[in-house]
Amino acid sequence: MSTTFEARTPSYSRIELAEVTARSQANLLGNIHGGEIVKLADSAAGIVAQRHSGGPAVTAALDEMAFLEPVRVGDIVRTFAQINWAGRSSMEIGVRVETQPWDDASSASLHVASAYFVFVAIDRAGASRPVPALRPETPEDERRMREAEIRRAHRLARREEIEAGRN
Amino acid sequence: MSTTFEARTPSYSRIELAEVTARSQANLLGNIHGGEIVKLADSAAGIVAQRHSGGPAVTAALDEMAFLEPVRVGDIVRTFAQINWAGRSSMEIGVRVETQPWDDASSASLHVASAYFVFVAIDRAGASRPVPALRPETPEDERRMREAEIRRAHRLARREEIEAGRN
Amino acid sequence: MSTTFEARTPSYSRIELAEVTARSQANLLGNIHGGEIVKLADSAAGIVAQRHSGGPAVTAALDEMAFLEPVRVGDIVRTFAQINWAGRSSMEIGVRVETQPWDDASSASLHVASAYFVFVAIDRAGASRPVPALRPETPEDERRMREAEIRRAHRLARREEIEAGRN
Amino acid sequence: MSTTFEARTPSYSRIELAEVTARSQANLLGNIHGGEIVKLADSAAGIVAQRHSGGPAVTAALDEMAFLEPVRVGDIVRTFAQINWAGRSSMEIGVRVETQPWDDASSASLHVASAYFVFVAIDRAGASRPVPALRPETPEDERRMREAEIRRAHRLARREEIEAGRN
Amino acid sequence: MSTTFEARTPSYSRIELAEVTARSQANLLGNIHGGEIVKLADSAAGIVAQRHSGGPAVTAALDEMAFLEPVRVGDIVRTFAQINWAGRSSMEIGVRVETQPWDDASSASLHVASAYFVFVAIDRAGASRPVPALRPETPEDERRMREAEIRRAHRLARREEIEAGRN
Amino acid sequence: MSTTFEARTPSYSRIELAEVTARSQANLLGNIHGGEIVKLADSAAGIVAQRHSGGPAVTAALDEMAFLEPVRVGDIVRTFAQINWAGRSSMEIGVRVETQPWDDASSASLHVASAYFVFVAIDRAGASRPVPALRPETPEDERRMREAEIRRAHRLARREEIEAGRN
Repeated sequence: MSTTFEARTPSYSRIELAEVTARSQANLLGNIHGGEIVKLADSAAGIVAQRHSGGPAVTAALDEMAFLEPVRVGDIVRTFAQINWAGRSSMEIGVRVETQPWDDASSASLHVASAYFVFVAIDRAGASRPVPALRPETPEDERRMREAEIRRAHRLARREEIEAGRN
Repeated sequence: MSTTFEARTPSYSRIELAEVTARSQANLLGNIHGGEIVKLADSAAGIVAQRHSGGPAVTAALDEMAFLEPVRVGDIVRTFAQINWAGRSSMEIGVRVETQPWDDASSASLHVASAYFVFVAIDRAGASRPVPALRPETPEDERRMREAEIRRAHRLARREEIEAGRN
Repeated sequence: MSTTFEARTPSYSRIELAEVTARSQANLLGNIHGGEIVKLADSAAGIVAQRHSGGPAVTAALDEMAFLEPVRVGDIVRTFAQINWAGRSSMEIGVRVETQPWDDASSASLHVASAYFVFVAIDRAGASRPVPALRPETPEDERRMREAEIRRAHRLARREEIEAGRN
Repeated sequence: MSTTFEARTPSYSRIELAEVTARSQANLLGNIHGGEIVKLADSAAGIVAQRHSGGPAVTAALDEMAFLEPVRVGDIVRTFAQINWAGRSSMEIGVRVETQPWDDASSASLHVASAYFVFVAIDRAGASRPVPALRPETPEDERRMREAEIRRAHRLARREEIEAGRN
Repeated sequence: MSTTFEARTPSYSRIELAEVTARSQANLLGNIHGGEIVKLADSAAGIVAQRHSGGPAVTAALDEMAFLEPVRVGDIVRTFAQINWAGRSSMEIGVRVETQPWDDASSASLHVASAYFVFVAIDRAGASRPVPALRPETPEDERRMREAEIRRAHRLARREEIEAGRN
Repeated sequence: MSTTFEARTPSYSRIELAEVTARSQANLLGNIHGGEIVKLADSAAGIVAQRHSGGPAVTAALDEMAFLEPVRVGDIVRTFAQINWAGRSSMEIGVRVETQPWDDASSASLHVASAYFVFVAIDRAGASRPVPALRPETPEDERRMREAEIRRAHRLARREEIEAGRN
C-alpha cells in the first residue's frame, strides 16, 4: 500500500463494477433485496476509500440512499463509485447503481439507486489516520465536492436540531 | 394480510431480531462487513413496514445511517425496528443495531448503528397504496414522530439546495 | 473469557435469538429445511455452553429433537436456549424454536421444535475441561434439571440395552 | 413418483453421499460446525425417506445424534443412510457420518457421528400418508429394525416419565 | 426477447463484468477457487449467448480454459466475453478474465484465464433452435472467427482419434 | 503429507463424491448452473491431484468439458475423478459427472458431463515441484494414459497453429 500524501484526483481511485444478480439475492416479491444493493454499493465505496487513502478504511455513515427502480434476478447491475470529498481522515464516496435487463442487449440502463457513504481511514490498531487531499480535475468533480459539503453541513445541522429538540 | 385502515400504534409492528454473526459475513479486516449490517437493518425495517401496512412494501430510501462500532465474527447482533412516521403510502422506520460479544455474557451491549429507512407500501401491480395512520402512544413515540418530520424537511431542503446549485 | 468456578445460574447464560428466514434455506417443498432449524438451535446452544463454561465448547450429542410445525420462507424464527444441567465437563442445553408468520403481526407464535443438546467444554488442545456448577434459581429451573437427569439415565440405559442385544 | 405398496427392502432406498467440506461451514474453532453435519445427515435421511415412501416426507424427530470426532475444512465427509423401520406413515432412518483427511489418501475413515431420524410421509396437502412396509433382507437389517423398536419404546417411556413428573 | 434473424455483430452482445472477490470463494491455499473463476466465466458467456440468440441458451462444452495467475481474496476480477462464431444453433463464446489487486489502484491488470465455451440456444421445451448469423466487423473479430473454426476442427479430430483408438 | 517418489497407481488417489443439489445452485431456467458442475468437478480433481502429489496443487487448465444432460434441483450428483497421466510436475485428471433423480431410486444414472483438468503441484512458495510417476494397473488405466497423451499433443498443436495464424 502506498503512503504518499500528495493530493490525488478522483480518477485515481474511481471504479466501475458489474455483476449478474442471483436468485439467492431475491426478496419475497421476486426482486433483488434492497439490502443486497446497499452491500454492493458499500463494497464499491470501500474499494475507492482504500485506494484513495492507500490502506484500510471503514464505513462511518451512509448519508442518503434513494431506491428508484427494482432490480430483477439475472439482470446486470453496474456500480460506479468515486470520491467526492476528503477531510482529515474521512472521505465522502458517491455511488451510482444501474441495471440492465439480461434478456435485452439493446435496452438502456436504468438508474436504480444513488448513495453517499462516509468512510474513515484507519491504521492497524483501529485509530483514524490522515488521508491525501483530493484534487478535483473537472467541473463535474468540483460540483461533486460542493454538493458533498452541502450534505455535510445539513448532516451537522440536522443533528444539532434533533439534539436541541431533546433538551 | 389485514386491510384495515384504523390507525395503528408503533407497538403493533415493532420487532426485535437477534443473530449470531458468521465468518462468511466478515470483510478483509476480520470484522462484519458494513453492508451486512445494512442488510440486517433493511430486513428488520421491511418487516415493520409490512406489518404496519398489512401487505408488501419496498425500500424507497435509507435516509441516514451511522456506524459507531465494529462487529466481530461470532457476536450476537440485536436489531430493534419501529415505525416513526406514516404518510399517505410511505413510512419512516427507525432501526437500532447493537452487538454483544459472544464470549462475555456479563458485558453490556454496544450501540453499533442507527438507521432511518423510508418504505413505500405497494400493491401486486407495484403501484403505491395507502397505509393506516400512525397513533403514537408514548412521549417517546411522539418524539420519534417529530424527529422523523425534521429529517423529512431536511431531506427535501437539501435536494432543493442541490438542485438549485446545478442551475 | 472468565475462568471462575463459582456456580452460575441458568439466567446468566440464557439467550434468545430471532431471525428472518431466507429463500436459500428452503427445501423442495418450499418450507425451511429441517437441517437449517437444527443448525440454528445448535448455534444458540453453543453460545449458552460457551457462556456458562467461560470458553470453547463443542457439541457432543443432540439427545432428542422433535419437529412440530413447518416454517415458511420469510417467517421470524425465535430460538430460546438455556442450560438445564451441568456435570464435570458436560452440559445439557435445552432449546425451543418458535415461528411467527411475517405477514401477521397479531398472530401468536407457533412452537416449531424443541431440542436437548449435550456440549463438552474443551481447552485449546481439545481436551475436556471442568465447568462451573449450575445453581437453579426457580422451580422451573429445578424441573428442567430433573428432566435432564431422566434423559441422561434413559440415554445410558438405552445404550446398554442396545449393546446387550448385540452380544 | 411410485405409489406401490409392496414391501420394499432397505437396499432399495439406501444411499451414500460424499462431499468436500468448505471454509464457509467452519465454526470459530476452525472445525466444521456441528449444525452443518446435522444438515448433511438430514438431507441424506430425507432422500431415503422419499425413496422408500415414493413421495414427499418431512423430518418429525431427530431421536439421538452423537458427535465423536471433529471434521476439518477440506476433509471428505461420507454420509451413509438407510431405513431401519417403517410404521404406518413414519419411518426411522439411520445415518452414519465418516470423515477422511483430504491430504492423506491412505488414512482410514474416522467415525464422526451417528443419527436416528424419524420422517413422516405427507401428501400435497401436508397430511400424513401410508408408506410401504419394510422387508429386511439381512441379519444386519433385522438387528437395525429391533434397535429402532427399542429407541421407539424408550422415546415413548421417557415422554411418559417426564409428563408424569410434571403433574 | 427479440426473435429477429438478421445477422448480429459481436459488439451487439459483448459484455464486461467486474466483481470484488469474497473470502467465501477461497480455497485452502487462500486463493480464489478455480471453480469460482469458471463459474464467473460461464455466467458471462451465458449472457452473451442469450443476447446474441435472443432467448435461453445452455452450456454445451467448455473447450479449453487455461489458468495463468492466482486471484487473491478482495481483488477486482474483470470478465470480458464476446461471441466468436455462430453455427445453426450453437455459438462459441470467448471469455478473458483479469484481476487487479484491491490495494493498488495504479497496478496493471493481470491476465488470469481465458476460456472458450460452446453454448446451444434452446426453446422452452429444451430443443435446439436456430440463432442469428454472426457478422464480424473488425479484423480482430475475423481472427477470432478463424481461431474458433480451428478449435472446432481440432475438437472433432481429437474425438475421432480417441474413438478410433478405442476400436 | 507424504513426500515419497515411488510411482503411484491411479487407484491410490481415485475418489467418488456424491451430493444433493440445492436450489441456490439453479440458473434462471431452473436447472443446476453449468458453472456449479464445473466447480464440483474441479474440487474432485483437486483432491486427486493433491493425493497423488502428496501436497498442494492448482488448476492449470481445463482441457475440455462437455455437458450432455441438465441436472435438476434435488438430484444426487456423483463425481468420479482419477489421474490419467503424470509429467514432471503436471497431472491430467479425468472427471465424470452423473446424476440420479432424487424421486426415483430405481432409475439409472445419467451421464451429465466429462472433463479433463491439468493440475500443477506447487510448493509453499508457489513454484512447481516434481510429482511421483504414474503406474497404470489395468488396460483401462493404460487407455486413459494414451488418450491423455493425444489430448496433450492436440493442445500443443492447436496452440502452435493459432500462434502461427497470428504472425
